[in-house]
Amino acid sequence: MHGTGNGRAGKRRAFAGTDTGRKKRRGKRERFEVRTDLALESREGAERAGKAPGGIAFREWERMGISFTEVEVKNGQGEKALGKPPGIYLTLEAGGLGEKDERCHRDAAEQLAVQIRRLAEQALGREEGQGFPHVRILAVGLGNPYVTPDSLGPRVLGNLQMTRRIAEDGDRPLLSGIVPGVMAQTGMETAEILRGIIGETEPDLVIAIDALAARSLRRLGTTIQLTDTGIHPGSGVGNHRHGLTRKTLGIPVLSVGVPTVVGAPAIALDTVAAVAAVLERESRTKGIGKWMEEMGAEEQHQLVREVLGPELGQLYVTPPDIDETIKLFSFTISEGIHRAFYGI
Amino acid sequence: MHGTGNGRAGKRRAFAGTDTGRKKRRGKRERFEVRTDLALESREGAERAGKAPGGIAFREWERMGISFTEVEVKNGQGEKALGKPPGIYLTLEAGGLGEKDERCHRDAAEQLAVQIRRLAEQALGREEGQGFPHVRILAVGLGNPYVTPDSLGPRVLGNLQMTRRIAEDGDRPLLSGIVPGVMAQTGMETAEILRGIIGETEPDLVIAIDALAARSLRRLGTTIQLTDTGIHPGSGVGNHRHGLTRKTLGIPVLSVGVPTVVGAPAIALDTVAAVAAVLERESRTKGIGKWMEEMGAEEQHQLVREVLGPELGQLYVTPPDIDETIKLFSFTISEGIHRAFYGI
Amino acid sequence: MHGTGNGRAGKRRAFAGTDTGRKKRRGKRERFEVRTDLALESREGAERAGKAPGGIAFREWERMGISFTEVEVKNGQGEKALGKPPGIYLTLEAGGLGEKDERCHRDAAEQLAVQIRRLAEQALGREEGQGFPHVRILAVGLGNPYVTPDSLGPRVLGNLQMTRRIAEDGDRPLLSGIVPGVMAQTGMETAEILRGIIGETEPDLVIAIDALAARSLRRLGTTIQLTDTGIHPGSGVGNHRHGLTRKTLGIPVLSVGVPTVVGAPAIALDTVAAVAAVLERESRTKGIGKWMEEMGAEEQHQLVREVLGPELGQLYVTPPDIDETIKLFSFTISEGIHRAFYGI
Amino acid sequence: MHGTGNGRAGKRRAFAGTDTGRKKRRGKRERFEVRTDLALESREGAERAGKAPGGIAFREWERMGISFTEVEVKNGQGEKALGKPPGIYLTLEAGGLGEKDERCHRDAAEQLAVQIRRLAEQALGREEGQGFPHVRILAVGLGNPYVTPDSLGPRVLGNLQMTRRIAEDGDRPLLSGIVPGVMAQTGMETAEILRGIIGETEPDLVIAIDALAARSLRRLGTTIQLTDTGIHPGSGVGNHRHGLTRKTLGIPVLSVGVPTVVGAPAIALDTVAAVAAVLERESRTKGIGKWMEEMGAEEQHQLVREVLGPELGQLYVTPPDIDETIKLFSFTISEGIHRAFYGI
Repeated sequence: MHGTGNGRAGKRRAFAGTDTGRKKRRGKRERFEVRTDLALESREGAERAGKAPGGIAFREWERMGISFTEVEVKNGQGEKALGKPPGIYLTLEAGGLGEKDERCHRDAAEQLAVQIRRLAEQALGREEGQGFPHVRILAVGLGNPYVTPDSLGPRVLGNLQMTRRIAEDGDRPLLSGIVPGVMAQTGMETAEILRGIIGETEPDLVIAIDALAARSLRRLGTTIQLTDTGIHPGSGVGNHRHGLTRKTLGIPVLSVGVPTVVGAPAIALDTVAAVAAVLERESRTKGIGKWMEEMGAEEQHQLVREVLGPELGQLYVTPPDIDETIKLFSFTISEGIHRAFYGI
Repeated sequence: MHGTGNGRAGKRRAFAGTDTGRKKRRGKRERFEVRTDLALESREGAERAGKAPGGIAFREWERMGISFTEVEVKNGQGEKALGKPPGIYLTLEAGGLGEKDERCHRDAAEQLAVQIRRLAEQALGREEGQGFPHVRILAVGLGNPYVTPDSLGPRVLGNLQMTRRIAEDGDRPLLSGIVPGVMAQTGMETAEILRGIIGETEPDLVIAIDALAARSLRRLGTTIQLTDTGIHPGSGVGNHRHGLTRKTLGIPVLSVGVPTVVGAPAIALDTVAAVAAVLERESRTKGIGKWMEEMGAEEQHQLVREVLGPELGQLYVTPPDIDETIKLFSFTISEGIHRAFYGI
Repeated sequence: MHGTGNGRAGKRRAFAGTDTGRKKRRGKRERFEVRTDLALESREGAERAGKAPGGIAFREWERMGISFTEVEVKNGQGEKALGKPPGIYLTLEAGGLGEKDERCHRDAAEQLAVQIRRLAEQALGREEGQGFPHVRILAVGLGNPYVTPDSLGPRVLGNLQMTRRIAEDGDRPLLSGIVPGVMAQTGMETAEILRGIIGETEPDLVIAIDALAARSLRRLGTTIQLTDTGIHPGSGVGNHRHGLTRKTLGIPVLSVGVPTVVGAPAIALDTVAAVAAVLERESRTKGIGKWMEEMGAEEQHQLVREVLGPELGQLYVTPPDIDETIKLFSFTISEGIHRAFYGI
Repeated sequence: MHGTGNGRAGKRRAFAGTDTGRKKRRGKRERFEVRTDLALESREGAERAGKAPGGIAFREWERMGISFTEVEVKNGQGEKALGKPPGIYLTLEAGGLGEKDERCHRDAAEQLAVQIRRLAEQALGREEGQGFPHVRILAVGLGNPYVTPDSLGPRVLGNLQMTRRIAEDGDRPLLSGIVPGVMAQTGMETAEILRGIIGETEPDLVIAIDALAARSLRRLGTTIQLTDTGIHPGSGVGNHRHGLTRKTLGIPVLSVGVPTVVGAPAIALDTVAAVAAVLERESRTKGIGKWMEEMGAEEQHQLVREVLGPELGQLYVTPPDIDETIKLFSFTISEGIHRAFYGI
């Protein structure tokens, strides 16, 4: 086991209920937060934890049956609260996406196109409605094509029509694309591969497509997230080690993703919460549930690590029809990208 | 939700600790047992539950660094205890299998061949060492080729050399094979497809290859199970609805499998157990942990269903390098089958 | 071109052939015909050969920019002339299909649906416009999924929604489907597999999808053929040995195909014709070209076999962008089938 | 049509048989030579044409049942004669490779390893037997993974174990790898992608794996070619536009390939030669065959273009069992590479 000593000690302190122990735990809370790639869920988590969401703007609206949620992380305070770097995180959700309703997916493609266009215009400092003449876009299909829930990016790339080297005379945007593979397949960081290609082909904008990890099972295959902040270390199904951001790649990076897995630790933590609730309901154990709820992230994560074993925090949970989900969303996203840059 | 009312009532009774409540739970225990396709794990579960494993023979041995465990379910009593129909369940385990050690996999292929030969001889009523002249074998690659942890069967089939229709004049065994797909792809039960093909091509023996669900994470990609009892309803990653057995197909059915997933409910139940252990360690909560441990399968499963939601018991947990595992074992198993019937 | 009556005479003179020789050759004529799966091309061949197309009805029309050609082989006379069994062979052609124009493909799907509905109604003896309540349809994706130009059938199957076992209560048609694989993968004839499945699941109609071999390069990826006569021995890219017809399967068989390859012998024969034409243009060799043209199918095929070598008549010619062609047509055909049976 | 005017004129001159015409043709001969990626075949072609193979060294030997042929292009003269840049072109041939004999493939892997080691040592200026401590190797899997005969490179990459980023502390060679895709998929030249990656990751050596085009059908799936000259424009199944050489990439480039296709023009030219031979056999046409043989490459190619049509020179011929061939050779080559750098 790993670090049992400290963990145990921490728990005992927690049990004693000293303020010191509690603060320490709270300070470490982010570190232990179960991973989600959805800013929406990070915000929910922060709210549940009673945090005032300072440095964060939040907007919700609906169009064509699709719910939009925009979380804007405005500064370091917001970044700290959500564990996500500053920028825009936009979520499209609709019941029909999960039910594989084709019309709903078509509407989502159209709405996604509108939003990609908006974020791309902002990222490139262009005025609205100008279009993207001569703009060079590099699409990146992240993930492992041979692992179904990680194959969203490669599948989207397979649906895109690359126009660079074909349409170079015109004034339309020029699309190129790459499926870099994962480190086990290449022996290289994705950031290394992309930096190299960007240096050689000089695109203006990267649009990265990746399968995401959610915190909640009900997000799987029901949500599309679009951001202008790129891909961050530890995100994605494959758990990228290095970021793909304007800072690391030198040009703006939009990213589009769909949650296809939930990390196995999330299941365990949800179980702890459910046990706590049950204990709280019973008169004999009343108080203990509350204590468990309050025992804090550190102890709970300690528990989870004991359950899952040392190396196995990498495990993920995914539904059996994930291949259908991936297939459907890969069309929705590729159509969204095409429409964003080339119209209908 | 599903029967929460009763469930709650049951739990309250359990809490009151009446004998009636307890017996009731015990009677339902099997129904709630978290699924494992490994008889080895069923036996471990029965032992943990303190059941005398009546009607079961158990043998362990080692060869070439591989641990063999043979569970023989001898009769209805054994079937009831393990939830597996009568027959032989043989497990090959070795550390090197999980570490992707090629030499270990080669040894496992050789040992698997020996055991396939033995079970095939028994199933066909042939004497040892006679070989299989003119015997017609139908290999069946179960599972969904497009969902990585379910693709073991189709991948093994891709490695087999089919000899029926090529070598019909000689006296060697004749191998044919099919990848029937899953019901969402075909609209047909696998049993329907196989019964049809068997009726038309009249093989003597089916050998079915399938990815399995284990109870414990540490079995993933470390174990091969060989049985002479076929495939049973509810088993496999894809969760077959109908059995593929001598009874349903009319000819003997060997099956070979490797655990590639653990059902998500298992993670939740392990977490409950870990919480109970933690509570038992603390003086303030001593007794409550024990109570939780004893609260029985029904309440625990009730909890788990609350955590995972109604339809989501289908969710599975799988490691991120599952594609490598599948690839490696698909060679080991296909080589084992080739050697069993054609020698080296 | 090949095998005109006059040619025979010329050849005999050239090679001092006897009458006996002539009869022998004529008897073998069909055997030497370069293979095409398109009845349209067989008819063109027959017309070029100056054959009166007795026993054949021919219709052409156009709708939505798509050219329809219907060849109806009415009896044994027509069968002899075209080398295709009696039935309807309908071809949809459009420039936009080859140019991968999406709108054109959508129109083709719609028109294909109308025609599938018509042929299915006729095959099932139903009146027009009744729809297909309770009708059970088995879709069959012929070909090898791992060989790109042979993968049309498997890809179409991957796009179909199977409704059998899901919608059995309603009165809509019930679709099931199978990708049987090729004999090298299964050790079984496709006809064996299908007879078995049909016996077990009792569909009313088979609709088989297969990649086709054309005679002319310009048909590759520009044409869809729909027939009510099933699949015949020697047809398809994979060159089926046994037919899949009402006679062999016991129920009506529609088939839909797209030419994705041209047999290598066709290239050689076209070259012979081109050489002959060149020789005929030159005064020094005038007469020799004509003689070559007239030398007849047997000698020409003899030549071709010398060029290609004995086993290599199996070789095929295919364009480098065949993967794109297959992908696009697989959507067009699956949409055509869906619309035919379920409306839009 | 394509340059018919000139072509016709050329032919007329050819027919008139003037020396001028003939010289002109001869001057253009290379340009018209049907493409082969095998230096062995280029040399055969040059020999047939009666060229003194100046600037070329040629060696043949045999080991373990494998025939080795080494063509060394020593200088510009040799380059002109063979149409291949200076360097070593080594061919391994064995009947067993084509017959899918596993033992033969294993022997070939071993011999390939020896030769890769030799060429890598030379390319890196290392002494024999030193091994490759700390040497960084970038493996490149050229070709389109979705087009079967072009998928050799991607498949080999799938079999390689990448050690860069894992074993960086030791002194073993460090392997990284990339499947760059084809330009239709990426909108980028492979050379652009590789230059970028090389600039960023600084390997010492590239080893590129690619499916090749042969001139003769009998080379398909029977031959492995290893060179130290990289990949040249117009080579490979996918017909690379830009070279991947020490000059374009800045580091030495070994390449390994297997012929999986023959260009369709080769079939047509072979047919012309066969027709010529037939004509020469007959007394009536004696002399014309010889004339045809002598009519030279230009006229023959003109013919071929007429047969195949303008854009269709891209068409290729491939056998129906190409998927099996690719699979088998992908193991042989990946094992050869592993052994070359890591021993057995």
